[in-house]
Amino acid sequence: MSVVEKQSIFNKIRVVLSHTSHPGNIGAAARAMKVMGLHQLYLVNPRHFPDAQASAMAAGADDVLANAVVCGSIDEALQGVVLTVGMTARLRDISNEVLSPREAMPQVVMRAGDHPVALLFGTEMSGLTNEEVSRSQLLVNIPANPEFSSLNLAAAVQVIAYELNVAGQSFQTVVPATSLPAPHEQVEGFMQHLEKTLREIGFFTTQNPTRMMQRLRRLYARARLEAEELNILRGILSVTTEYNARLKMRYQQEQQDVQKH
Amino acid sequence: MSVVEKQSIFNKIRVVLSHTSHPGNIGAAARAMKVMGLHQLYLVNPRHFPDAQASAMAAGADDVLANAVVCGSIDEALQGVVLTVGMTARLRDISNEVLSPREAMPQVVMRAGDHPVALLFGTEMSGLTNEEVSRSQLLVNIPANPEFSSLNLAAAVQVIAYELNVAGQSFQTVVPATSLPAPHEQVEGFMQHLEKTLREIGFFTTQNPTRMMQRLRRLYARARLEAEELNILRGILSVTTEYNARLKMRYQQEQQDVQKH
Repeated sequence: MSVVEKQSIFNKIRVVLSHTSHPGNIGAAARAMKVMGLHQLYLVNPRHFPDAQASAMAAGADDVLANAVVCGSIDEALQGVVLTVGMTARLRDISNEVLSPREAMPQVVMRAGDHPVALLFGTEMSGLTNEEVSRSQLLVNIPANPEFSSLNLAAAVQVIAYELNVAGQSFQTVVPATSLPAPHEQVEGFMQHLEKTLREIGFFTTQNPTRMMQRLRRLYARARLEAEELNILRGILSVTTEYNARLKMRYQQEQQDVQKH
Repeated sequence: MSVVEKQSIFNKIRVVLSHTSHPGNIGAAARAMKVMGLHQLYLVNPRHFPDAQASAMAAGADDVLANAVVCGSIDEALQGVVLTVGMTARLRDISNEVLSPREAMPQVVMRAGDHPVALLFGTEMSGLTNEEVSRSQLLVNIPANPEFSSLNLAAAVQVIAYELNVAGQSFQTVVPATSLPAPHEQVEGFMQHLEKTLREIGFFTTQNPTRMMQRLRRLYARARLEAEELNILRGILSVTTEYNARLKMRYQQEQQDVQKH
């Protein structure tokens, strides 16, 4: 891959830091990014930003800080993103697919060839929320000392950005994407449509809706839905409820016919 | 490699920081080490040590700082070492062998099986001196952005320690405990149930059934459905037809009521 190609791909990779407490970590993360050729920084509700400590720790990556996009919600930060990779320190009970950075970063590089990809980092203290995990199609765990796995936020960004850079270097031919992955907001739209329909048909009477939706999210996250597939699935949901509307109409029609005679 | 074996090997790997200016970097380096299972820190003439800032940045890796060996010379720090790996930001004219971290760290792990090995980091501003390079049998360059290669010292320690940890793990056989994928016949049972339901709710009136089922097969094949997920999906299908049957009955009932009056 040429330098120009690589830069164009790396410009589609955004680092999303959610609810960061310490501005120094934001600055150090910006430096860690720039050192590895990443420039797109998104901050979801940072506690302090802009901040002098962030600038001090950026040490030459001021441009990354200056261009950082501050967002009010995770969905805003993921607008247009086709693949969200959540960083997790725990191997969660909801067993989403958890990959190592080495396994995941080549996928990130390949996908970012055509569309925006997000690398999502949670807070310093507690990592990703369940909501954030549910937005991730892929979870990545940086292997660490099981007795002391407290990786600093900027250090985690550094490791991931390093692996990305290595993946970018060994990335030769861009395999043309056969089909278009669905952007974040379309996937969310489907999940809402699915939940609404399941409620309507009475699926949740014997099921815990939250737990059930988590499981279904996990299933469809693993499938990495394409835009066209989403249309099919939403089509099925529509027909599921329309069918009833049609039935109703048909019987009403018959009823009118009966009344006329 | 067992956990005990790995610890015994990692205890033979020392991180040597030469003439470090900022105590915060020493603390952050200690944390970066411990997170990846390294504990042996050697400091050659640090400008400030011990120091409150070092302790603050260590954040739980105080034991690494407390056990750090402060030395008056590089040769003192390398006492007993059989392999010194110098970290360099530049590809030097001195034609030492320069490897990537990925190439070098498996060698470090292998060598540390029997004797102490040193990972040598120069100062924040100017890296290794010529004297220090001359003490290294191997030079390692962390690949970085050619236009901004200013890797923070602790970040460099983090990347190298991470690569070491990965190299150490690849000797182990890690079998991830994942959930059970559904056997072939169960997946087929689901696909038939799905097709039957789609027919029933009239989804195929405007769609080519064969083509549509192929697409849905592809989607669910990619998801690699687990047995429990299959049960959930079949549950949804069952509720969908039950719901429709209930509705149908209700409308037929209404129709009869109308006819009675």
